[in-house]
Amino acid sequence: MDIEGRRYRTIWLNPDDTVSVINQELLPFEFKIEVLRSSADYLRAIRDMRVRGAGLIGATAAFGMFQAAKEAPERDWQAHMRGRAAALEATRPTAKNLEWATRRVLAAIAGAESRARLVELARAEAQAIADSDAECCRAIGLHGLELIRAIHGRTGRTVNVLTHCNAGALAFVDYGSATAPVYAAFDEGIPIHVWVDETRPRNQGASLTAWELGKHGLPHTLVCDNAGGLLMQRGLVDLVIVGADRVTASGDAANKIGTYLKALAARDNGVPFYVALPSSTFDWELRDGVAEIPIEERDMDEVRFVRGLCEGRVVKALICPESTKASNFGFDVTPARLIDGLITERGICDADVGAIKRLFPEASA
Amino acid sequence: MDIEGRRYRTIWLNPDDTVSVINQELLPFEFKIEVLRSSADYLRAIRDMRVRGAGLIGATAAFGMFQAAKEAPERDWQAHMRGRAAALEATRPTAKNLEWATRRVLAAIAGAESRARLVELARAEAQAIADSDAECCRAIGLHGLELIRAIHGRTGRTVNVLTHCNAGALAFVDYGSATAPVYAAFDEGIPIHVWVDETRPRNQGASLTAWELGKHGLPHTLVCDNAGGLLMQRGLVDLVIVGADRVTASGDAANKIGTYLKALAARDNGVPFYVALPSSTFDWELRDGVAEIPIEERDMDEVRFVRGLCEGRVVKALICPESTKASNFGFDVTPARLIDGLITERGICDADVGAIKRLFPEASA
Repeated sequence: MDIEGRRYRTIWLNPDDTVSVINQELLPFEFKIEVLRSSADYLRAIRDMRVRGAGLIGATAAFGMFQAAKEAPERDWQAHMRGRAAALEATRPTAKNLEWATRRVLAAIAGAESRARLVELARAEAQAIADSDAECCRAIGLHGLELIRAIHGRTGRTVNVLTHCNAGALAFVDYGSATAPVYAAFDEGIPIHVWVDETRPRNQGASLTAWELGKHGLPHTLVCDNAGGLLMQRGLVDLVIVGADRVTASGDAANKIGTYLKALAARDNGVPFYVALPSSTFDWELRDGVAEIPIEERDMDEVRFVRGLCEGRVVKALICPESTKASNFGFDVTPARLIDGLITERGICDADVGAIKRLFPEASA
Repeated sequence: MDIEGRRYRTIWLNPDDTVSVINQELLPFEFKIEVLRSSADYLRAIRDMRVRGAGLIGATAAFGMFQAAKEAPERDWQAHMRGRAAALEATRPTAKNLEWATRRVLAAIAGAESRARLVELARAEAQAIADSDAECCRAIGLHGLELIRAIHGRTGRTVNVLTHCNAGALAFVDYGSATAPVYAAFDEGIPIHVWVDETRPRNQGASLTAWELGKHGLPHTLVCDNAGGLLMQRGLVDLVIVGADRVTASGDAANKIGTYLKALAARDNGVPFYVALPSSTFDWELRDGVAEIPIEERDMDEVRFVRGLCEGRVVKALICPESTKASNFGFDVTPARLIDGLITERGICDADVGAIKRLFPEASA
């Protein structure tokens, strides 16, 4: 990710074995790097959404397991590591990558014959997970680029992509999932423009996607979550690409609440709708996403208050009567039947159990 | 409308021939009555959305024509009145009721034989328009009540209604269109609960619908505009009722942006979707709503900033990077094929040209 001419990842290991992250709670108003120094720091960073997004949550959990290894007792450290894994997994119930990452580190350290070796194995596995996340997203970008190139070849006009939430470089270690094809097309010189859904209640589109596209110099326009249907009715959207927090073996995709509404509008207007994801987001054990994927409920004050900049200060402003109660589900599930394809690191496939199995024969349940 | 035990309309004529309105720009944080004393006051009140909502815009335009009559020159006042009508109609391009009201007053004063008679006729017609708006909404409530009663009879549980924007008492002279059946059911003792869409960018749901339901003591929960799809997937919505700003002779309905997305979700989940409107909202000359209804574009700062209460003060907070551009369409069009019925003052009919014609044989084009 390019930020004012400098190349960044969203999370990295420092020479002193601490880990640095971009504090996303402060964006877009302040760009601040924070150092995670204890297991409590990791749990808080994920729960408070200083780090968020499928891939980045996974990478943070992986480094959290490395932190746990550093804090392990001299004896019986496997139980300690399992306990820390469970605590990390409990921070965000919908995100599949969390569990995927903690399990990978647990498997990597299973044979550790000493505490020193435990730390070494956990560090190596966490770094490998972060590297692989970035590499997967780069590959997603190259596969998705083909879709954009084909649309541009057909229309000869600027390609308009709509995205919801932030499945950008900030949501992963680098590149992003939904944004990776967009960055790849832009860098190749294809004229491209992104409609950025605001993404209430936490406004990840307005505060994160708009920020990172702006830093990259990529043309984009902010719209309310309500606008996508009209934009599609008017032919102003060529392609929808969103990310995902958990995708079943049959292609149902849980993503930020409101995604399902955009998928319905895309289908109703003949606009192709794609979900971009690294394979770490698949939940191979689930088939019926609507019935089976757990949906996180968050604090109602995320709905009742909006965060923004007022007279140079970041404030939280109440948008309803003081006595009004709110409900705050974090995700919805887009059924596979509304998804034209999944863009993965191995290529694009239909959102159905057979096509997914052919692309990932070793993993499918 | 009951506000802290006192009965109000949203607009009324004072004994001194001035007109009072509730300033809806200040809600829900301040309840303030304002007096409109000049044509400029009327234009500003509508354009700045101190008064808003299909019926109330119409009633305000009608009283605005009365104000124009008071300001008319001694000679050639028909040209003066036509000019003032055009200025009022230009304030909000999507709302059908505006034009409907100005034309009604123009027709009423056509035969005025003196300036004094002009003022008298304009006053009487404006008052009649306001009275008829309230009466239409009361009748809509009684017809819509049947739908809610039937659902409650079938399920025996609390009836969950979802609504978008504010088509409440505040959007009309009294009762509201979408809310009238809800108030009628509540007042009859049917257990009822309303999911209130926040309705970005101007948050009429959070600031107006939540406020008026709260003042009436009617159970409700605020949700983000993104939430409706998930709520319907989970069976938490029995009925969607929305208002409309303009409905074609074939039943296509322009309403606050985002309405179309809820109609798609309702259809996908088998939830009945109704549009409530007085017949003054019909545009008898249009057939294809998506192609023909003009859609208002508003200032992009309505998207970039959110209004709210912070430390006892109403502030506007920036929610995106300072350099981010936004787009702000005010409405979308829900095609008739997604609408299960229109709730009008004469009863409920299918959203198709034949059924509408049978209910309003005198008006159809």
